Amino acid sequence: MTEIADPAVLNGYFRDRDLRALAAELRAGHTTSAELVEHSLAAITRLDPILNAFTAVDAEGARAAARTADQELTQGRDRGVLHGIPVSVKDLLDIAGQVTTSGSLVHPHLAAADAECVRRLRAAGAVIVGKNVLHEFAYGATGDRSAHGPSRNPRNITKISGGSSGGSAVATAAGMVPLAVGTDTAGSVRVPAALCGVAGFKPGYGAIPTTGVRPLAASLDHVGIFATTASGLADAYAVMAGHPVHPNDATARVGWLDPESFGPCDPEIVTCVRDALERAGIDVGGTAGLPFSAGEVFSVLSILQASEAYAEHVDDLADHEHTIDAEVVERLLRGRDTPAWQYVRAGRQRDTLRAAAAELFDRFDVLAMPTVPTVATDLDQRAHEIDGHAVEVRSALLSLTCPWNLTGHPALSVPAGSVSGLPVGLQLITTPGNENLLFELASRVERS
Amino acid sequence: MTEIADPAVLNGYFRDRDLRALAAELRAGHTTSAELVEHSLAAITRLDPILNAFTAVDAEGARAAARTADQELTQGRDRGVLHGIPVSVKDLLDIAGQVTTSGSLVHPHLAAADAECVRRLRAAGAVIVGKNVLHEFAYGATGDRSAHGPSRNPRNITKISGGSSGGSAVATAAGMVPLAVGTDTAGSVRVPAALCGVAGFKPGYGAIPTTGVRPLAASLDHVGIFATTASGLADAYAVMAGHPVHPNDATARVGWLDPESFGPCDPEIVTCVRDALERAGIDVGGTAGLPFSAGEVFSVLSILQASEAYAEHVDDLADHEHTIDAEVVERLLRGRDTPAWQYVRAGRQRDTLRAAAAELFDRFDVLAMPTVPTVATDLDQRAHEIDGHAVEVRSALLSLTCPWNLTGHPALSVPAGSVSGLPVGLQLITTPGNENLLFELASRVERS
Repeated sequence: MTEIADPAVLNGYFRDRDLRALAAELRAGHTTSAELVEHSLAAITRLDPILNAFTAVDAEGARAAARTADQELTQGRDRGVLHGIPVSVKDLLDIAGQVTTSGSLVHPHLAAADAECVRRLRAAGAVIVGKNVLHEFAYGATGDRSAHGPSRNPRNITKISGGSSGGSAVATAAGMVPLAVGTDTAGSVRVPAALCGVAGFKPGYGAIPTTGVRPLAASLDHVGIFATTASGLADAYAVMAGHPVHPNDATARVGWLDPESFGPCDPEIVTCVRDALERAGIDVGGTAGLPFSAGEVFSVLSILQASEAYAEHVDDLADHEHTIDAEVVERLLRGRDTPAWQYVRAGRQRDTLRAAAAELFDRFDVLAMPTVPTVATDLDQRAHEIDGHAVEVRSALLSLTCPWNLTGHPALSVPAGSVSGLPVGLQLITTPGNENLLFELASRVERS
Repeated sequence: MTEIADPAVLNGYFRDRDLRALAAELRAGHTTSAELVEHSLAAITRLDPILNAFTAVDAEGARAAARTADQELTQGRDRGVLHGIPVSVKDLLDIAGQVTTSGSLVHPHLAAADAECVRRLRAAGAVIVGKNVLHEFAYGATGDRSAHGPSRNPRNITKISGGSSGGSAVATAAGMVPLAVGTDTAGSVRVPAALCGVAGFKPGYGAIPTTGVRPLAASLDHVGIFATTASGLADAYAVMAGHPVHPNDATARVGWLDPESFGPCDPEIVTCVRDALERAGIDVGGTAGLPFSAGEVFSVLSILQASEAYAEHVDDLADHEHTIDAEVVERLLRGRDTPAWQYVRAGRQRDTLRAAAAELFDRFDVLAMPTVPTVATDLDQRAHEIDGHAVEVRSALLSLTCPWNLTGHPALSVPAGSVSGLPVGLQLITTPGNENLLFELASRVERS
């Protein structure tokens, strides 16, 4: 595969701009929300024909909201760090008056109200510029099967963005926006964040309300965030969770979670991630293994996810099976015949896994490991080899992220470097209430 | 059917004795815990061969615990109103060192530890005298199918006690104990309380921990209480929930919930229950109907209950299907083929029903209705007629109680009088945190 475009060309205005720096420039009068929105719209116009990160752009709405944001700032009404900042939102979340497509041609839904987390962003002054491409129904980690076509990796457009929140990752990684909203059911924020080289955060289960978000599998679904820097994640998280991030000192006990206990992992990625921790001066106090079998994690997650996804999409399949991507149909149909009692048992096994995971956090405040055991694969590639093992791309992409959807722990991916010229993510996991540890540690990795 | 025994004969020592009166007598030195335990054991010896309320009696353990309780009181160590009081426990709850049978011959389980609520009772000084008969696996509202034989109604031993906590209801109604513990998945405390003429309480979902209690259907299971009076329920609830009952004034807005909106109801029972409210001077401020169809309630409850019960008992069925009562097997097998996606959808419908029920409590603090739409039927009777409608006894018994297992609201049954010489229960339902309203109103009904 050749690199079709020079990565340097695929950089929008916000590529290296931190949210807090933008906020300071706004308040110093060096820029306006209107200007930021024009930067965003210009980057989308220039880059999106190649990268395909947006399903819809609301230039009019964004410009109007920016004018209001600027007027308010002029009048001394300051809604906080997100005031006037352009944001894009995965097209699985409702925006009042716009169509939610869920990345599908089936049953598009004209939203009457904003999703609750979008409402909170707007109330904090954020300006919604558009909606992001996603893997159809958010049911795929590659990001290359969507009614809107595949989103492409800004570091190499022959590669996947990862998914399902691929468009949101690409929009942030390519600097079209400094902040984007996604969802994460098994890794759908952290995987594309890692593959595209941007910071991504899946909060604790339930920490950001999912009201107005089309479910994939409600007991595993989390609203998540992409930002150019970890401090941007922290600021957006406080707004979307509806409360300040609980402060704590950064002397966390950090443990290394052996990725090999989850399945094959590229050794160069392990080295890259460990080097990033060392460069950042983060002491790793010990190593832990997965306290449950990876097979059990996959089996429990598959039963829960497939059953809940089928329940959500049974009417879509009945009416329009041939309109839905064949691979997505195949995944959905896996949920048709699972008996309810097995689902109930899987739910109990999840409780056991949660308890086992909780014990890991007796020894450590934060666990560190790679986010994804491979760099971005080719678009449409399904078979892959990692460290000499033949793997299925779609399962392998999720192997290190999905356990934390079962357990509900907050988990963040921060760029750690690159392997073969493609981004690598470091994943940091903690317990609810300790989110700030993740933001602080990720900031140290960014600075080093 | 003839009445085989004179009901007056079937009265143990505690029949008309209030828990608080017993506590006062203990502290005044008019009795001892040892004496109360002997009263209990004597009543069990005399009555249980007829009524069949106990699977096991721990005379030695109870006597030893009573001695300790008496010593403590002598030494000035007072654990509160339950100190020294004899209690019996449904044989679905673990008692350390004893076998939990779940009313079945299949897979009896030697318990290593007390169920959490039993531990709390003991810590409050209660003396456990024995374990109560239940419908096999707690899966039946009649109480007449158990490895230990049917429990019998103390008001007419040819009639069912109701179930599944039949033995616990009978033990309290016949005065063998002043207090007993049961469980309630669709009405298994309130139904036998109503049919036997004793006070029974199902708390809000989760208010009393179910640790150490064999599940029937975990998302619907509640630990519940029987007592000779409503004040006994209040005292035991505070201990078992682990916090004092929240006080409130008794000027509750009480609404009448039309039982006809749930299905056929004996008009004499409606009259009996309304008269009881009037005698107690409880103003009924309006009438509400069920804000959802009874068919929907049954359908959602059936899917959830059958799936969860099958998941719990699949190994029992595999190994010992022919040892389990045929009717219980038939009910269990209903859960075998339900697909998981229908279970997921039923869970969502439950959320909708909960929201609809919550709206009822905008207008009223407490809802009043009969507990059961018929008086106790004959043992083994399955077909019945209520108000000219042919009904299936097992469904009819649960029609007014099961909605509150789906919604999780606290609900209490208090004796309201009798029809055809058999007890009738008034059911009072409220929102979590307002339990005291139920205890206060029920006490007024008892006094009038």
